[in-house]
Amino acid sequence: MQKVITLDKTPCISGYASIVGKKEAQGPLNEFFDIVKEDTTLAKDSWEQAESQLQKDAVSCALKKAELNEDGLDLIFAGDLLNQCTGAGYAMRDFGVPFAGVYGACSTMALASALAALSVNSGYLNSAGAVASSHFCSAERQFRKPIEYGGQRTPTSQWTVTGAGCLIFERSNKKNLPTADKVIFGKVRDLGITDENNMGAAMAPAACETICEFLNQTGTKAEDYDLILTGDLGRVGTDILYELTQKEHGIDISPVHNDCGLMIYDRESQDVHAGGSGCGCSASVLCSKIMQDLSVGKLRKVLFVATGALLSPTRVLQGETIPGIAHGILFSGGSN
Amino acid sequence: MQKVITLDKTPCISGYASIVGKKEAQGPLNEFFDIVKEDTTLAKDSWEQAESQLQKDAVSCALKKAELNEDGLDLIFAGDLLNQCTGAGYAMRDFGVPFAGVYGACSTMALASALAALSVNSGYLNSAGAVASSHFCSAERQFRKPIEYGGQRTPTSQWTVTGAGCLIFERSNKKNLPTADKVIFGKVRDLGITDENNMGAAMAPAACETICEFLNQTGTKAEDYDLILTGDLGRVGTDILYELTQKEHGIDISPVHNDCGLMIYDRESQDVHAGGSGCGCSASVLCSKIMQDLSVGKLRKVLFVATGALLSPTRVLQGETIPGIAHGILFSGGSN
Repeated sequence: MQKVITLDKTPCISGYASIVGKKEAQGPLNEFFDIVKEDTTLAKDSWEQAESQLQKDAVSCALKKAELNEDGLDLIFAGDLLNQCTGAGYAMRDFGVPFAGVYGACSTMALASALAALSVNSGYLNSAGAVASSHFCSAERQFRKPIEYGGQRTPTSQWTVTGAGCLIFERSNKKNLPTADKVIFGKVRDLGITDENNMGAAMAPAACETICEFLNQTGTKAEDYDLILTGDLGRVGTDILYELTQKEHGIDISPVHNDCGLMIYDRESQDVHAGGSGCGCSASVLCSKIMQDLSVGKLRKVLFVATGALLSPTRVLQGETIPGIAHGILFSGGSN
Repeated sequence: MQKVITLDKTPCISGYASIVGKKEAQGPLNEFFDIVKEDTTLAKDSWEQAESQLQKDAVSCALKKAELNEDGLDLIFAGDLLNQCTGAGYAMRDFGVPFAGVYGACSTMALASALAALSVNSGYLNSAGAVASSHFCSAERQFRKPIEYGGQRTPTSQWTVTGAGCLIFERSNKKNLPTADKVIFGKVRDLGITDENNMGAAMAPAACETICEFLNQTGTKAEDYDLILTGDLGRVGTDILYELTQKEHGIDISPVHNDCGLMIYDRESQDVHAGGSGCGCSASVLCSKIMQDLSVGKLRKVLFVATGALLSPTRVLQGETIPGIAHGILFSGGSN
């Protein structure tokens, strides 16, 4: 069963950084991102190279803000949506930092953060990083159709975020920085969704289970948190999540809940249908506005639960249903 | 920089299991595997489903040998070579166990084992599993050509193992079982290899660095180990490893070294060219003969260093070179 693990040493977030593309910068979170790339090719020869560059820039910026150099980082957990996780693998080639590749689809930022926080808390490492990315153009051609094809999008579909986010965890917390207090790892949940354009529905059951299990084991209520933040359920998945937590557990999380996929774009004007998605969605939102609000004490307790749809195009063509997963990490605010 | 982490609670391996296909069972390690599948479809509709079944069978068998049920397993680290790691994701759907997806290409078994051992050692979890798999037919069609194409294989190419291996780590060691004593996470190394049929050459530099760093930091010599076991360098990669360790570090590891890719097949009679490869290669060899020899004290100290080539077919077609990585874990023998 899922267990809530308490991080008794409460590792701090000594650095965080976000990088996004043009469309994301046109959304409501514009002012909070560290780096904005108007040219989403990032002057690279391929979308895949551009995505690796997003991770590199996010890590470099977060290290700088943490006042650490590469040698000071003991391990980095990194992942993305590309085949063979090459967004991360090729990015980490340029850092002299030990690298543990992780895969949790769009839950990758929560998975990487949970493992990084655990590693630092255990005392083995002084510092660890977590980074995740996605790129609209590399994701579209890999999971759906090349963008040149101009395919129609269904109303339930979501827009893959071009962006990345990086957190640096350290043991000593001299500056009253935000901390990571608890983590919970998700189980795979599959309720039989087969529509690869409806990821929100495939991931909502896993989010429901992880959130309710967390509240149950910690003996807390939804209103004890300033924010319960899911990764990229979008409009469709969020509505299903509210229904599931209410019907199956009698819990109404809606007053304190938000979803990165609903926060990053203006759905009215930006034509993103059900919202944002991709590893870079929750990573860039968490590592911008959320961390800034936690740093200044505007947010005190944030339960971050990113969800992932563990599908591949091959498996969907073979008629398989889409499994979902949700990993969680509890952050507490600092007072800078 | 890479750090050797000492596991002061020395978590034990309470269960281990291996499963392989027909060709692997015809090799020299035949008698050591727990399960042999003469029909490598495993009665499934696709090669991908067959690969997930390999993981499921390996986990079930290892849990049984550890006398644990699913509820007793706190977390499982799992990975494979398939796009979006669906070998693991779809397998874990059928277990009620929290799941952390990892990706390290053919180093996945070492990465998963190192993270599982760390988690248990830290005291957060009572038990954790590590599992990795590969399947010849799913790998060939994804990375090269569908097997029906009948493509020619180059002399440096390796044969992807159809198989999986699973280890169960627990904290209490009442039965004098083998233990995990130290771990080391690898850095990405890229010396410019572009031939996707020469994985051994791409991975050897990473293996050299991890092994020499481990010996250096622990103040030990190669001859202090009964076995330094690499994952799947094969004949080509092994020769390069010997040359690199000798020339760059003045260390001759050859008297105590072996490679899972050289152990699993009879290269004279089985037409596998440079040897075996795939996540399932090191996983099935480690979780069969090696663990059996460690259990009875026939082997006392085994440094297991699995290597991975972090390529994707897309990146290779884009003209990128192939990065390699190597993660390590030190096992000590029990005395049953």
